[in-house]
Amino acid sequence: MGMVGGGRGAFIGAVHRMAAALDGEIELVCGAFSSDPERSKLSGADLGLPPERVYGSYKEMIEKESKLPEDVRMDFISIVTPNHVHFRPAVLALENGFHVVCDKPLCFNMEEALHLETLVKRSGLLFALTHNYTGYPMVKQARAMVRNGDIGEIRKVVVEYPQGWLSTKVEDTGSKQASWRTDPARSGAAGAMGDIGTHAENLAEYVTGLQITEMCADLSTFVEGRLLDDDGNVLLRFDNGAKGILHASQICAGEENNLNIRVYGTKAGLQWFQMEPNSLYVKWLDKPMEVLRTGVGNLYPEAAAHTRIPAGHPEGYLEAFANIYRNFAICLRARLEGKEPDPLYMDFPTVSDGVRGMRFIERVVYAGSSEEKWVKF
Amino acid sequence: MGMVGGGRGAFIGAVHRMAAALDGEIELVCGAFSSDPERSKLSGADLGLPPERVYGSYKEMIEKESKLPEDVRMDFISIVTPNHVHFRPAVLALENGFHVVCDKPLCFNMEEALHLETLVKRSGLLFALTHNYTGYPMVKQARAMVRNGDIGEIRKVVVEYPQGWLSTKVEDTGSKQASWRTDPARSGAAGAMGDIGTHAENLAEYVTGLQITEMCADLSTFVEGRLLDDDGNVLLRFDNGAKGILHASQICAGEENNLNIRVYGTKAGLQWFQMEPNSLYVKWLDKPMEVLRTGVGNLYPEAAAHTRIPAGHPEGYLEAFANIYRNFAICLRARLEGKEPDPLYMDFPTVSDGVRGMRFIERVVYAGSSEEKWVKF
Amino acid sequence: MGMVGGGRGAFIGAVHRMAAALDGEIELVCGAFSSDPERSKLSGADLGLPPERVYGSYKEMIEKESKLPEDVRMDFISIVTPNHVHFRPAVLALENGFHVVCDKPLCFNMEEALHLETLVKRSGLLFALTHNYTGYPMVKQARAMVRNGDIGEIRKVVVEYPQGWLSTKVEDTGSKQASWRTDPARSGAAGAMGDIGTHAENLAEYVTGLQITEMCADLSTFVEGRLLDDDGNVLLRFDNGAKGILHASQICAGEENNLNIRVYGTKAGLQWFQMEPNSLYVKWLDKPMEVLRTGVGNLYPEAAAHTRIPAGHPEGYLEAFANIYRNFAICLRARLEGKEPDPLYMDFPTVSDGVRGMRFIERVVYAGSSEEKWVKF
Amino acid sequence: MGMVGGGRGAFIGAVHRMAAALDGEIELVCGAFSSDPERSKLSGADLGLPPERVYGSYKEMIEKESKLPEDVRMDFISIVTPNHVHFRPAVLALENGFHVVCDKPLCFNMEEALHLETLVKRSGLLFALTHNYTGYPMVKQARAMVRNGDIGEIRKVVVEYPQGWLSTKVEDTGSKQASWRTDPARSGAAGAMGDIGTHAENLAEYVTGLQITEMCADLSTFVEGRLLDDDGNVLLRFDNGAKGILHASQICAGEENNLNIRVYGTKAGLQWFQMEPNSLYVKWLDKPMEVLRTGVGNLYPEAAAHTRIPAGHPEGYLEAFANIYRNFAICLRARLEGKEPDPLYMDFPTVSDGVRGMRFIERVVYAGSSEEKWVKF
Repeated sequence: MGMVGGGRGAFIGAVHRMAAALDGEIELVCGAFSSDPERSKLSGADLGLPPERVYGSYKEMIEKESKLPEDVRMDFISIVTPNHVHFRPAVLALENGFHVVCDKPLCFNMEEALHLETLVKRSGLLFALTHNYTGYPMVKQARAMVRNGDIGEIRKVVVEYPQGWLSTKVEDTGSKQASWRTDPARSGAAGAMGDIGTHAENLAEYVTGLQITEMCADLSTFVEGRLLDDDGNVLLRFDNGAKGILHASQICAGEENNLNIRVYGTKAGLQWFQMEPNSLYVKWLDKPMEVLRTGVGNLYPEAAAHTRIPAGHPEGYLEAFANIYRNFAICLRARLEGKEPDPLYMDFPTVSDGVRGMRFIERVVYAGSSEEKWVKF
Repeated sequence: MGMVGGGRGAFIGAVHRMAAALDGEIELVCGAFSSDPERSKLSGADLGLPPERVYGSYKEMIEKESKLPEDVRMDFISIVTPNHVHFRPAVLALENGFHVVCDKPLCFNMEEALHLETLVKRSGLLFALTHNYTGYPMVKQARAMVRNGDIGEIRKVVVEYPQGWLSTKVEDTGSKQASWRTDPARSGAAGAMGDIGTHAENLAEYVTGLQITEMCADLSTFVEGRLLDDDGNVLLRFDNGAKGILHASQICAGEENNLNIRVYGTKAGLQWFQMEPNSLYVKWLDKPMEVLRTGVGNLYPEAAAHTRIPAGHPEGYLEAFANIYRNFAICLRARLEGKEPDPLYMDFPTVSDGVRGMRFIERVVYAGSSEEKWVKF
Repeated sequence: MGMVGGGRGAFIGAVHRMAAALDGEIELVCGAFSSDPERSKLSGADLGLPPERVYGSYKEMIEKESKLPEDVRMDFISIVTPNHVHFRPAVLALENGFHVVCDKPLCFNMEEALHLETLVKRSGLLFALTHNYTGYPMVKQARAMVRNGDIGEIRKVVVEYPQGWLSTKVEDTGSKQASWRTDPARSGAAGAMGDIGTHAENLAEYVTGLQITEMCADLSTFVEGRLLDDDGNVLLRFDNGAKGILHASQICAGEENNLNIRVYGTKAGLQWFQMEPNSLYVKWLDKPMEVLRTGVGNLYPEAAAHTRIPAGHPEGYLEAFANIYRNFAICLRARLEGKEPDPLYMDFPTVSDGVRGMRFIERVVYAGSSEEKWVKF
Repeated sequence: MGMVGGGRGAFIGAVHRMAAALDGEIELVCGAFSSDPERSKLSGADLGLPPERVYGSYKEMIEKESKLPEDVRMDFISIVTPNHVHFRPAVLALENGFHVVCDKPLCFNMEEALHLETLVKRSGLLFALTHNYTGYPMVKQARAMVRNGDIGEIRKVVVEYPQGWLSTKVEDTGSKQASWRTDPARSGAAGAMGDIGTHAENLAEYVTGLQITEMCADLSTFVEGRLLDDDGNVLLRFDNGAKGILHASQICAGEENNLNIRVYGTKAGLQWFQMEPNSLYVKWLDKPMEVLRTGVGNLYPEAAAHTRIPAGHPEGYLEAFANIYRNFAICLRARLEGKEPDPLYMDFPTVSDGVRGMRFIERVVYAGSSEEKWVKF
């Protein structure tokens, strides 16, 4: 693995490295950790990389790694930069035959997204998008339950993603994280809706297997002087006739990272909270509620395959994130060995999920400012 | 107290009687418990009333009680019938000088509602509407915190009322409760939105002190053959610029009676769940979450005045309901004694709250079928 | 009902009155509310009783009520005084043919307890002890599950009753509640162990149907200058070979009234918390945990018979307390009508439960100061 | 790092590897993964190690690694075998100048324990014992709060460790995990008390900073034919006069891995649950309960230093486990570089904690079979 971004002071780069390291399947062999070559060098040294494989730019990295022997050079790149620096490294990597792992959202706008999708398909290379929240075992259990008809036909979906960390104008206080996320030039057309609304959209479609067909949105910017939305409330309609609500916010004072979803079918309702990820609440129509727990009883193979330790030993965010890397690595290894991977592990978000996320951003921003009640997805 | 409705097999009538009895302030002295005089007699006998004060109709009751000596006759009537039988007994009682307690929603349509409001104002009589959920101590604490500026300026409100008991067509199985609630002739223009959506609307406005100004709604009827909405998702806008979401449903499989509210201000967020009513979660921007509990520490007087027992001795639905009756009784007693009641107890939903609820029903039904995105409240 | 104690400023008297009033089965007709006749008069007036039936002492009450016509005089007395004033009014009432409801613990010492038990048996009168915590529907569900073998043979029981309100020397600050509970002359041989330890003991034996046979205890007095125990840790052995732990404390800072129990059998474990009384957690060996809820699904008749309102409408402490009064009233009414009551309602703590509680106090205090490891119950 | 044990099918070995890998500080360079050399080879190959550094026995590993150049050979060994195979590899490693990480409990009996302690002290080498539960950030927060006097003088401690997985005789069903833990020849003098009771003891002493001075124990073996305790209830006395309860069990049907602790001081109580490890409940005497959360607000540096990701991104068991490895690695690196490590990271269980754990096992087993009430620790 070669990393683009994630130098000193970055948050998500370190997460990617821990997630990639956890299972001993992936080795960080090189990186272009910063657009500032000096900073990149220092970051590489922190990570114990040999200086000759710490590059001053992703271009240099891709170019030089391409020339290394096959058993030495990186197999794939991992892009952990802000949104506006996803597209070009991804394109260059794909054009040079490197597989790609990319942070979400996919890129900056729909044009880039569609270009990337085409390129991935044409190249035949693997492309994983780190919508990490679908990596949790109990999310996979929920999806399997829906797919197997356990909760009947879906009628209603409520997905929420409240955070509170942008309740004040922290982007003016030197926060690197806040700064780029609230800057249209780096974040794209949306603020909260792009940063976390896309996770909510991805989670809802992943768990239900449905697609959003129409949206009605009310987006707001509560903090004065901010340029992008910091709150959004959206009514949803799904392709099977189900109705739904999606709301995401970064001004819900006191909320940490409270992504959660409820799915109500004709037979039962499911409820899952990211902050208590090892429990899945199943509310049956005519019998007591069950609390399914990671590692307890007969869960579906999809859940069991993404669990590392026994029941009652809590697994968290990094393990869910690592499930994406591990599945990507398993599929990549199978590819390199000319085998078919076990379908249980062919489960990570793809470039097409990324295109859907970009479409969500584009349409929800449009819907937010539109006089029309319903906007097609 | 004389009761209209609430005969054998009724649910809410028994609740009203327990709530009225709890504090020893109110005595049931007569009733017209059913439109079937025989059934009314039997119900009165069950309750140990003397036969001469069990009446065959509310008309008979009001007429005959009016003629009893002042210290014998009922002081007020309590109307616990289905929605379409609220208006006439209320009018007759008011016209004959009786105070009124009435179950919610206020009546059948806006016309009746406005008529009632006028009549109450003209008569100067007391009128309480049993939006019981605002009777909980921690709801009063939340309202006091908002009013005192503890959470800053309100930005976002999320109020939910999911139930699951109408997930199947139980109105066809002989359920008296389901039957009238799903019948437009008895329930009115709305199903779930009238039965429980009004509670959600009332709770949101009570806690925040704000008024809803605009709504965008998507109402659904999921159970085939049902005539009224059994699910609704609504975007809200408030008079201070805050945004909100209200959703109420009776087809959320496995949900019991899960009314809950979150209010986010510039300084903190509040969260309260009706099913665990003695806790109020306060999520501060920059310090740990606090869990305020009925009876613990220095709550506002509004909360303390509506608590009967020490901390850790859970108070529930009936006690909250009884707070309306007790406050009504305190105000009535003060009136009869020519005194001013303690303002702490001048706190029960009035006919004007009822008018607002009826307006909500009318407008949300309109919004649900409208092509307009935003509908004025 | 005639009440002994419970005048102005008392806590538990008001609870008894609300519990007795809730179901409209019992009427307060007279009382001796204080040992101070003037205070008794004032309290009676507060409650709207006619002055001639407010007495200056329980002796006067029992004597004068005995002489009233049968259909006028009280049917039973309710004793809500501190522990040292339970015995004599109970004896006098029984000797004069009045049934008795008595607050817990039964009395002051074993001698009184055994005398009372004999007297009750000889008189054939009804005697209810208000161990109110066994009145909760989900406690009755737990008991029924154990009895029906749902959790298999019981192996381990953990019952806890932590409170924090005596963490400082509040008895010196004018608290009437704290004052008598920490005074050996009024409370008896034990402090926390008598006041709340007996509830824990009663709950454990009620739910399991087992009897404690041996105890090993460590009692402490943490607050300087206090004369009775304010904390106790006890190992238990039961008559079927099960082991257990009971701890009760009034110095667990920040705890409200956190009575709770866990019972582990060979097939499943049960867990119930008094502060969230409408949930019963059932932890199965090989399938997901279930959360049984008051009013949801197919509970045992014992639970359903003690529930007043639908699922999701929380019932609390007063309703549980009222279940004792209601069951007592049902049995008393059947007695007066010469019928057998429905066995579902022949379920309230009796004088024999009270004797067991007094034995618990005596033995646990002995065990606490004993060098022996195991003390017979 | 060279590993002893942890071959195919082992549980804890994989945990150690993930924990060591997470932060990129430690590299697995060699191993003796099984006492069966063939199995060791296969396990090493699974892990991608070069065949020449996969050894047939720990003896071979230590001997051969000793002869490798300093910058190639392993720096320390990690012992992840059953209890009876801790002592000898540890001794041999220490004698050959290798630092040691060892799974808990320290070894097989007190004699071994004291020998090891002496050897570690004499050698001056680093020795970490993986009592991983003290690696959680909120455990460190609790310890810091106690140390800083936030909760006042400690009066009572309740520590529980219920599991249910040995409720039936799973050791007869081929479970490798169950098999050695229930075998006196491999597990030592205790079953549940050794396997998990030691964690409870370690957690209680770590958080409180107190030492247990006396114990009164009731140990049981509920599953027929089992040779070691599978349940134990223990009364505790601490060196400051505080009282406590410790219970640990592997027959609590339906419990997963429910380690939890409550500490009550004169000012507040603390509560922490391993299964929901990112919350610490602080119950104050006179103000609302606070819920401290990993990453939220101003936690003590000890908590912050052991947190990897922002609030609301749950950290779990592996991250806590990894904190031991990371701190060990930081201290080891400082040692190799001749520096003093930051005291915040000089925080991992040592050989002396291990000796205390072995003493706990010895004394609690003695106390369990003793007629004496109190046994000195």
